Amino acid sequence: MRHSYRCPLRWSDMDAFGHVNNAVYLRYLEEARIDFLTRAARETDPEAFTGGTVVARHEVDYLRQLVHQADPVTVETWVVKLTAASVTFGYEIKDPASEGGPFVRARTVVVPYNLKEGYPRRLSAAERSFLEGYIDDSHSG
Amino acid sequence: MRHSYRCPLRWSDMDAFGHVNNAVYLRYLEEARIDFLTRAARETDPEAFTGGTVVARHEVDYLRQLVHQADPVTVETWVVKLTAASVTFGYEIKDPASEGGPFVRARTVVVPYNLKEGYPRRLSAAERSFLEGYIDDSHSG
Amino acid sequence: MRHSYRCPLRWSDMDAFGHVNNAVYLRYLEEARIDFLTRAARETDPEAFTGGTVVARHEVDYLRQLVHQADPVTVETWVVKLTAASVTFGYEIKDPASEGGPFVRARTVVVPYNLKEGYPRRLSAAERSFLEGYIDDSHSG
Amino acid sequence: MRHSYRCPLRWSDMDAFGHVNNAVYLRYLEEARIDFLTRAARETDPEAFTGGTVVARHEVDYLRQLVHQADPVTVETWVVKLTAASVTFGYEIKDPASEGGPFVRARTVVVPYNLKEGYPRRLSAAERSFLEGYIDDSHSG
Repeated sequence: MRHSYRCPLRWSDMDAFGHVNNAVYLRYLEEARIDFLTRAARETDPEAFTGGTVVARHEVDYLRQLVHQADPVTVETWVVKLTAASVTFGYEIKDPASEGGPFVRARTVVVPYNLKEGYPRRLSAAERSFLEGYIDDSHSG
Repeated sequence: MRHSYRCPLRWSDMDAFGHVNNAVYLRYLEEARIDFLTRAARETDPEAFTGGTVVARHEVDYLRQLVHQADPVTVETWVVKLTAASVTFGYEIKDPASEGGPFVRARTVVVPYNLKEGYPRRLSAAERSFLEGYIDDSHSG
Repeated sequence: MRHSYRCPLRWSDMDAFGHVNNAVYLRYLEEARIDFLTRAARETDPEAFTGGTVVARHEVDYLRQLVHQADPVTVETWVVKLTAASVTFGYEIKDPASEGGPFVRARTVVVPYNLKEGYPRRLSAAERSFLEGYIDDSHSG
Repeated sequence: MRHSYRCPLRWSDMDAFGHVNNAVYLRYLEEARIDFLTRAARETDPEAFTGGTVVARHEVDYLRQLVHQADPVTVETWVVKLTAASVTFGYEIKDPASEGGPFVRARTVVVPYNLKEGYPRRLSAAERSFLEGYIDDSHSG
């Protein structure tokens, strides 16, 4: 199962070359992760990820250039790998209305974190159970 | 040899958690690359990279959190790999005045591009010669 | 008549104080203006504002603080004043689901511009006619 | 007396029209204000503005367009008006190396604020004394 998030663009996401800038795609991934880890996860466990999370690593492949458009793009997110104290997400940023494949494929390693106290923590059983529903190892993304 | 760029921070680089946001580090890498590929490279060849470049891939490891400070951080950039039509950069973002190692280690695959016509191109002999001076395969970054 | 635009927020719109940063509201106004001047205006005249526009002045009053939320805010835009070569917009940024009045009231002077040639130009008759439909001088905003 | 701040640009400050975007100038003003209200003010009073400040109003006139350059621009800041619980700043953003006058003139009303408790407060005697040294009513900016 994949989590699907419709992410609206802003005109200012484009840089002086007239394309969405490579750094801005991390904002799209961030919006999708927030929707996934707070809104969606908390439907099953209101305490999920309430202490915060930290990004430990990104890998981003830029496949096609994207120009500002009024319609949102779709960020699909799934779980590539779970460890005791981290989750690796896979994503594809695509536009169902556009031919030609994803604009971006990416992976992010996220560490559950106690932001108030300043230390990483393990996934709770409820968080792990929620994330396991999105494991999708059939994709290379 | 490494290229060293002093990158000023902005207060707004911090997010609601009070740290420099993970997406913002790509701006620091961008500033360092622009200084390297336009200012520095054009001291040896005024035509270097004038047609544009495109980012094909980023890998970013977030090692330590950074809070806004008045003093710039240092972005060190070097060349990890050269192919006929791409260059892979390695970077470390660090603060000489701070103990504790780099905040970020990253790699970026950059493709020379003819932005006006819309196609990738090969590195010129002068570009390749300039980049070869920064090959540094002694680092894992 | 007012133009109404539903503007999605991003988590990164907040600064280290945990509120939407004052500079970011200009992005919301920009998104509303683009929707108004390109999408809406071009339904009546496909050539409207195709050469570009330039912002000559902003006045922005910050009335209430806004925290990131999943639901969009509403940007209402109307025309305060028309001259031969400029239009002054009024706006209110509000949330229909929130009590307590607008977050921001603002005005912007926009100049139609020939961005390719680099000079300001007069409003066309069709642009003027479209804008006149949104004149609303009953508001102080 | 005016406070002078050298503000570095970033390539990403430009939008798809190839000029520094109107919203980005508010970042330059913010950097100048932070340097003025925290670094400079705290040289005379270490407690100055430690509780936070809030922007109540901006007025910004865009006079000339600015393209990314390696050299910083200069933000000059002075005090236009003081009340018991607010300060109005005037600014000019200019480039000493460029002919043709300022890029931007602006004014900002800032309210000292207790951000932790959530209420505005009066200027302290030390803050007022510091700010009075920068009153400059000889300028229309």
